Amino acid sequence: MSFVLSHEAPLSGLLYDTETAAAFSIKQDIHAQLRFERALARAQAKTGVISNEACKAIETALDDFTIDPDDLTERTRRDGLLSPGLVAAVRATVAPPHDRAFHKGTTSQDLIDTSLMLRLKALLPRFAGRLETIVDGLAAHASNAELMAHTRMQVALPITVSDKISIWQRPLKSALEQVPTVFPLQLGGPVGNGEALADDFHALANLMASELGLSAREASWHTDRTPLLTIANWALSVTTALGKIGQDVALLSQNEIGAVRLAGGGSSSAMAHKSNPILAENLVTLARFNATMIGGLQQAALHENERSGVAWTLEWMLFPQLIIATGTALRNGEELVQKLSFPKPG
Amino acid sequence: MSFVLSHEAPLSGLLYDTETAAAFSIKQDIHAQLRFERALARAQAKTGVISNEACKAIETALDDFTIDPDDLTERTRRDGLLSPGLVAAVRATVAPPHDRAFHKGTTSQDLIDTSLMLRLKALLPRFAGRLETIVDGLAAHASNAELMAHTRMQVALPITVSDKISIWQRPLKSALEQVPTVFPLQLGGPVGNGEALADDFHALANLMASELGLSAREASWHTDRTPLLTIANWALSVTTALGKIGQDVALLSQNEIGAVRLAGGGSSSAMAHKSNPILAENLVTLARFNATMIGGLQQAALHENERSGVAWTLEWMLFPQLIIATGTALRNGEELVQKLSFPKPG
Amino acid sequence: MSFVLSHEAPLSGLLYDTETAAAFSIKQDIHAQLRFERALARAQAKTGVISNEACKAIETALDDFTIDPDDLTERTRRDGLLSPGLVAAVRATVAPPHDRAFHKGTTSQDLIDTSLMLRLKALLPRFAGRLETIVDGLAAHASNAELMAHTRMQVALPITVSDKISIWQRPLKSALEQVPTVFPLQLGGPVGNGEALADDFHALANLMASELGLSAREASWHTDRTPLLTIANWALSVTTALGKIGQDVALLSQNEIGAVRLAGGGSSSAMAHKSNPILAENLVTLARFNATMIGGLQQAALHENERSGVAWTLEWMLFPQLIIATGTALRNGEELVQKLSFPKPG
Amino acid sequence: MSFVLSHEAPLSGLLYDTETAAAFSIKQDIHAQLRFERALARAQAKTGVISNEACKAIETALDDFTIDPDDLTERTRRDGLLSPGLVAAVRATVAPPHDRAFHKGTTSQDLIDTSLMLRLKALLPRFAGRLETIVDGLAAHASNAELMAHTRMQVALPITVSDKISIWQRPLKSALEQVPTVFPLQLGGPVGNGEALADDFHALANLMASELGLSAREASWHTDRTPLLTIANWALSVTTALGKIGQDVALLSQNEIGAVRLAGGGSSSAMAHKSNPILAENLVTLARFNATMIGGLQQAALHENERSGVAWTLEWMLFPQLIIATGTALRNGEELVQKLSFPKPG
Repeated sequence: MSFVLSHEAPLSGLLYDTETAAAFSIKQDIHAQLRFERALARAQAKTGVISNEACKAIETALDDFTIDPDDLTERTRRDGLLSPGLVAAVRATVAPPHDRAFHKGTTSQDLIDTSLMLRLKALLPRFAGRLETIVDGLAAHASNAELMAHTRMQVALPITVSDKISIWQRPLKSALEQVPTVFPLQLGGPVGNGEALADDFHALANLMASELGLSAREASWHTDRTPLLTIANWALSVTTALGKIGQDVALLSQNEIGAVRLAGGGSSSAMAHKSNPILAENLVTLARFNATMIGGLQQAALHENERSGVAWTLEWMLFPQLIIATGTALRNGEELVQKLSFPKPG
Repeated sequence: MSFVLSHEAPLSGLLYDTETAAAFSIKQDIHAQLRFERALARAQAKTGVISNEACKAIETALDDFTIDPDDLTERTRRDGLLSPGLVAAVRATVAPPHDRAFHKGTTSQDLIDTSLMLRLKALLPRFAGRLETIVDGLAAHASNAELMAHTRMQVALPITVSDKISIWQRPLKSALEQVPTVFPLQLGGPVGNGEALADDFHALANLMASELGLSAREASWHTDRTPLLTIANWALSVTTALGKIGQDVALLSQNEIGAVRLAGGGSSSAMAHKSNPILAENLVTLARFNATMIGGLQQAALHENERSGVAWTLEWMLFPQLIIATGTALRNGEELVQKLSFPKPG
Repeated sequence: MSFVLSHEAPLSGLLYDTETAAAFSIKQDIHAQLRFERALARAQAKTGVISNEACKAIETALDDFTIDPDDLTERTRRDGLLSPGLVAAVRATVAPPHDRAFHKGTTSQDLIDTSLMLRLKALLPRFAGRLETIVDGLAAHASNAELMAHTRMQVALPITVSDKISIWQRPLKSALEQVPTVFPLQLGGPVGNGEALADDFHALANLMASELGLSAREASWHTDRTPLLTIANWALSVTTALGKIGQDVALLSQNEIGAVRLAGGGSSSAMAHKSNPILAENLVTLARFNATMIGGLQQAALHENERSGVAWTLEWMLFPQLIIATGTALRNGEELVQKLSFPKPG
Repeated sequence: MSFVLSHEAPLSGLLYDTETAAAFSIKQDIHAQLRFERALARAQAKTGVISNEACKAIETALDDFTIDPDDLTERTRRDGLLSPGLVAAVRATVAPPHDRAFHKGTTSQDLIDTSLMLRLKALLPRFAGRLETIVDGLAAHASNAELMAHTRMQVALPITVSDKISIWQRPLKSALEQVPTVFPLQLGGPVGNGEALADDFHALANLMASELGLSAREASWHTDRTPLLTIANWALSVTTALGKIGQDVALLSQNEIGAVRLAGGGSSSAMAHKSNPILAENLVTLARFNATMIGGLQQAALHENERSGVAWTLEWMLFPQLIIATGTALRNGEELVQKLSFPKPG
């Protein structure tokens, strides 16, 4: 799953976060899709859908399975999805007749959506950690020093540095309280009703969700992208809160105002005296970038029929970028908070 | 507060919902802003910030106050806000010296944001009612009749009409379970820290919130638009769920498929045989319209300094439209569900 | 045609332009659609598609035709379009048997798209006039007085006021040089190939275009929205150029910088000393509003099959707003340029 | 310049175009920035701004210059731009005292914007070539065979395959007639007024533009992004026109309609009979992706002061993606046209 920003781009150091991006690599995607297949086989064995021997043959095949992602490229281009090629490659290594028990009753979208959820579940606690660092780092700046407030771009009345810190912290704290914890298993089979998966769909889904550490849902969510959008909206709440800090820092560190200083600013190729508030600007940029992504992602939320190609593929082109930009904003936010100071007036 | 879609437009019958739009009329806005002022005066009297006489003088003035909104137009154009003109007009009717106790320590944004929340609080239960009607209306169509499922725009495997109904209902039910219930009071004064409002800001805020039936928050949210965005995102979940139904109905009612019929379709000025699935198309349009609005609204979420003019005004241009479009989609959705049928194949 | 911003909204004085909005009223839309019908009848008479008597009967009917738009509301809601109801109402007044010659071979989309182009053709020269006023008004501010330039929000090197004026003028001048002049007739009939309209489609189209003062095109553009998007993109170039002025004025008129003054600023309900740069902020807001609209309009550019309902209706919800916001920005820009001054430093 | 989609993503075969993406590699960016510096030195030598010896020393340094892009990463992160680090690295290799003549009077934005224009100028003729292939490929399908037209998702009246081909070709042909040919040099120096570049700015700019094969402009366009937006809007006209073909093909190749066949369709991991119209869906996805990008790019068009960091960086995150998606759509469009057929009815 995914269509990601590149680490080869000139500004990758500023606009890209390697750690977050790893979650959207083809390698991690394949790994997570195979975890889905293993959990499915085990749960189907437990519920009697496939035999224990078949399960064992599948697990053995999965233990030994390796693939060069490049081998999947041509097939993926034709199928519009990674999974058919991947499934075929694995199945070819399952000892017959158990190959027929492999991937039983499921469909590519079950694999791909579940794979994404597995990776998000691992990623979001790291985001929470970065958020905490930022909230704590801001706290260290609190003081009763006076700071001029501005409304509608004009001088208003004095507040304190602590007032400003609170304004910045509040939406971050509220994002921290609401870090997503629901990462649902996707399970439904080719037309979403779970019919070919098991007699007792719910028992199977519960077993699998429990094995994978995911949430079980009453039914598949092939065309209902709420679970992803909930995470995306949360990510937006983070980048907007950080963008607000960036915007304020860029304004308060204008030379004529000088109420905030950002150490280690960017240099100019032409003006030696410049110290540009790169990290602050960057947080605004990433907030506006994510606002762009969510607009498209909401367009992508409209899935026709039982499963959509158009909308789902658009989701893949936007969602990973939104998450990577969030990871980048958090990392850059951590650095900004450290480099920030409120110089004494006068 | 607002910048609304017009009931004078040629397609207002289809694209506009009078009942929802009323919530964004200048009349209701003024009414709600005056409720804020009354609640503020009462709470400030109870907490000793102003005298009981002052409170009484203010309440008397509010009881008698009427204004022709047109009288505010020129002033509003200059101030960029309704409230300064409105406050001045009210104050002129408060018996001195109590006029100085009026609007004490507060600011336009407290009035305007609170006014919006008061109106949303009244509106959303009506949305919930419409949602319920739709969910129930869909249930009436459930049956074990076979329906061909389609994935990636191709015939997949048969499901039942009940399967399809469940797919449509699920995101609507989940929206019903999550109808927003948090409508926070906005209170903070000119620079958001509540200093001129009361010695005990929290006591004051709690009194006011309780009187107005709103939620109290730890502090003002002048630059943190999360409360509004939460409601907007919920509205999107509704219009996307309805748009999905519309998209499916438009596809399934293609003449060559004929799996769904929509009674009372639109006629063509040129082709007598046509029966266009107007209501179904309309739900897709409104979903895409709201996806457009949310993209802009997330851009508008970035408020600089203690209070922003640019971002806040952009919010006013988008948020009401998004809510009105949601109301319209719900009303059209109710009608669509009634006019829908699944003809027996053959 | 349309879904417009309301003159009843609290901020209509600032966010709405009555003159521009009139172009999107149902009254002007009906008027222009009837002009299309008259031109069609005349051209079809000239090319022998209908008789001269029929043409005369149609023209007589059109001369006398009046309708209360409210009478069309219910029908418009059902049809999803104004035209079927309007055409039926006119036809009922054409003396038989000539009623069958009315609206011959055409379709609602021919009427509606042509109607819009007729109204835009009348509107855009007024936009050009406003643009010229702004460009000239800016010229009056030019001087060799020093102004500090800023890059990446930091002090850079001194420039002159004239340099700044040039920066502001350039994109406006370039917009002036590119005011759209192509307003194509829409003509194609129900499936766009013009078959039922005339034996010689091109002769007919040329006659009609010439009578209406529109451009003729080789064929219908029912699903190719380039003509509208070209105008929309031009409008964006205007609002972005004005938004840039607004952004700079808001920054340069910060109290700590004070390099620009904007007379008659907005007052605050709470802080008597404030003079908020409302008009400057407003230009930024309208630029961001139009950036939002164009994103949706490009989504709406994807019309399926021979004519789309979903995409076309979405276009109606966005395009008029974009044009009205452009008219508003031009009007507010005119005022801003007059109220602007560059105070002498020191 | 850039923030590109990755060739490592699972769907890179379908969603990414290696040839187009190469234009946005750091390697090509560095190469083009160095071309700018060489042209600047030559033009400044010709106009007497620097000595011929200085020019020669600079050219020698540029001849020999190589750099590992990774060496620039940390510096680029700090500066928010590639150029300051690159310029410093080159300058260190220019023999003193001529190092002071290097990069004289210019600024990073001159390098970066010009570099982008150089690469777009090389790229767009390739796009035109692909467009021509598609237009020609479509022509080969023209025939008088009957095809049922659909309007508002319902059967309308019969047209011919040639009618459909014309509908598809028209916006592509019009895009072919309007392939952008204006790729302006960016030149203005740190605050855009060209002062430190030469006494006769226009002579210098003309010399440089001519040497680089770019258009000269009256002045710098640091904050006026019209040149880029013109290209972006053209790219949208291409992807929308291709998306329309994709949308129609997806609809017409529904099994129940069967009016179009797309050879080599995608397979399903679960349903052996499926042949999914991947390429058709993909064109719709890319059109909606680009509609998303342009919305953000128009937000990024608002550059504050003499040069913006926030807006410019956002442009880098969106513009390359939009161009790469366009290249991908063209490549996939070429393939779709080849695989397309209109089966004889019956």
